[in-house]
Amino acid sequence: MADLKSTFLDVYSTLKSDLLQDPSFEFTHESRQWLERMLDYNVRGGERSLSLSDISSKLNQLTSNTCVLFCSVLFCSAGKLNRGLSVVDSYKLLKQGKELTDKETFLACALGWCIEWLQAYFLVLDDIMDNSVTRRGQPCWFRQPKVGMIAINDGILLRNHIHRILKKHFKGMPYYVDLVDLFNEVEFQTACGQMIDLITTFDGEKDLSKYSLQIHRRIVQYKTAYYSFYLPVACALLMAGENLESHTGVKDVLIDMGIYFQVQDDYLDCFADPETLGKIGTDIEDFKCSWLVVKALERCSEEQTKILYENYGKSEPSNVAKVKALYKEIDLEAVFMEYERESYEKLTKLIEAHQSKEIQAVLKSFLAKIYKRQK
Amino acid sequence: MADLKSTFLDVYSTLKSDLLQDPSFEFTHESRQWLERMLDYNVRGGERSLSLSDISSKLNQLTSNTCVLFCSVLFCSAGKLNRGLSVVDSYKLLKQGKELTDKETFLACALGWCIEWLQAYFLVLDDIMDNSVTRRGQPCWFRQPKVGMIAINDGILLRNHIHRILKKHFKGMPYYVDLVDLFNEVEFQTACGQMIDLITTFDGEKDLSKYSLQIHRRIVQYKTAYYSFYLPVACALLMAGENLESHTGVKDVLIDMGIYFQVQDDYLDCFADPETLGKIGTDIEDFKCSWLVVKALERCSEEQTKILYENYGKSEPSNVAKVKALYKEIDLEAVFMEYERESYEKLTKLIEAHQSKEIQAVLKSFLAKIYKRQK
Repeated sequence: MADLKSTFLDVYSTLKSDLLQDPSFEFTHESRQWLERMLDYNVRGGERSLSLSDISSKLNQLTSNTCVLFCSVLFCSAGKLNRGLSVVDSYKLLKQGKELTDKETFLACALGWCIEWLQAYFLVLDDIMDNSVTRRGQPCWFRQPKVGMIAINDGILLRNHIHRILKKHFKGMPYYVDLVDLFNEVEFQTACGQMIDLITTFDGEKDLSKYSLQIHRRIVQYKTAYYSFYLPVACALLMAGENLESHTGVKDVLIDMGIYFQVQDDYLDCFADPETLGKIGTDIEDFKCSWLVVKALERCSEEQTKILYENYGKSEPSNVAKVKALYKEIDLEAVFMEYERESYEKLTKLIEAHQSKEIQAVLKSFLAKIYKRQK
Repeated sequence: MADLKSTFLDVYSTLKSDLLQDPSFEFTHESRQWLERMLDYNVRGGERSLSLSDISSKLNQLTSNTCVLFCSVLFCSAGKLNRGLSVVDSYKLLKQGKELTDKETFLACALGWCIEWLQAYFLVLDDIMDNSVTRRGQPCWFRQPKVGMIAINDGILLRNHIHRILKKHFKGMPYYVDLVDLFNEVEFQTACGQMIDLITTFDGEKDLSKYSLQIHRRIVQYKTAYYSFYLPVACALLMAGENLESHTGVKDVLIDMGIYFQVQDDYLDCFADPETLGKIGTDIEDFKCSWLVVKALERCSEEQTKILYENYGKSEPSNVAKVKALYKEIDLEAVFMEYERESYEKLTKLIEAHQSKEIQAVLKSFLAKIYKRQK
């Protein structure tokens, strides 16, 4: 696994170097420097662009306590690359664990990186739209000195890089056009999900009556599930020569898994130990259309609903505490546990109904990674 | 021509209605409304979404003076749709003026609209990056109430609509993959052009020594010429069954024409009558890398250069006046006239060297539209 990760990171270096030498554009020295810094910061994850010797010299300067702190910052500042790595894992399982050729490994890693690039593109722009402060433990890209609104164009560049990578490495493949269509389709669905999220959260007054399980499902399905769960597997399927049209069942399972994943996220945001989670949740303060508030609305008495309306979406700790107390009162933890159990059962059944053992293995490996996760 | 424009606008209605009913996404009522308003405002041009009866009732309320003003606002608020319409014009010329079938007309118009969508996407995001106030005589989209930074996601949606349109109407065509690659390539080049423009204009202190004819050419070629000049003709060529690889000469002429067009733009920004131009130029105030300042830097004495450095990029009218006086002193008008004459001659020669009479006709029609334009 450590080995896969280092291969994966090597492929990043190759892809980055291709993009910095792209013959379709005459770079200036400054623009090439800008681009490299932007890619390392947003795609690969900021601090990880330090060389090993940089890191060891930094560590030498630190006492053991600050060393732990530094390591945790280092960890946070790195994207976990789960989405990208899962393309390679899935492709291996589809190949029944046979050793991949170097070419196959490179291509699977390149597709994995395309998903990481897509994610970086969404995050750079989402952080501006949400006016966020930090991302993965470091300041959001648009908050870096000299960046500001130039980050919008950087987001566009990240998006365009995906097509540059696909064209350079996949243009001759029989599945090239399906790959391009796939990335476009998933990008479109993600942007649509973001649209209803933005409109629902920001349009007019803060009004909880807009929130329902149906709208929560719709936001999550489009904004998160397609690109985080369906896309990696769809990439692996295309590489393995499969036709996506004949795998709509796989898509449905992965979308359901993506929704389950986001419900966990919503649950952990409020109930997880911040130290384990690695961040402090702010969904209540941010008036997020979280699964918890939607479930609470379903289960509250008239009086409890009133408390929720009065306190949800306010940043004072006393308001947040009242919402949390209410969540405990109506035992949302138990509701979540029951949801988790049911989801696992339902997903397992769906997976086992699938005729291909290889595809079952892919889907099971996804489920195993997320079931009962604590962070 | 009036007829072509109304056909073109009918195709807009069809495309918009397809997008509002797109089966790949479950719209909420609010998101469908949002999207329609956003498209009418940014792609079709705000005021033109008024019905004829709205317009006539507005006109009835006005005295003749304000009527003229209103009409001019109406005119400004509409995009001129030149880029989109030129796909249809070019395709007709490639077909030697033969009557197009309804299907051909629809497809040529749809490709034209894809370019208008691309332009809308760039403009919505550029206006945020430049912190602009108005666009086509109405407030920039992100300055509309309730829009703000949601405009970033709207820009992304506009970009994604291009692929939805291509997929719906061109997926079966032999040139589908070339079309998708073309739009991706041109979008990439435009974003790269915007990158060097942003970095050159905003990086560090205002420093005129960064500006040169070479950097001006590079910004203009990538940021404007590819999508405004090359893209419409490339779309028409693909529809006519041509292979773009064998038409690199056409690309070169169109890029040169795009550069000439932008030099005119830079010239008119300073020297045109604002009433004819329909806007008041602010390139000097905005520290733009304009062809005029680049030419001035080439021609100024040491003393004149000092005046330029002291006054360029400042918003006070006295500073602007000093720059304009300097431009007159070194007779930039004559320099431009000579550039215009030379460009016309060079472009005409290049066009006449082309072997295909139909392609010559396409290129000549582009040149005729822009030569000695006053606005």
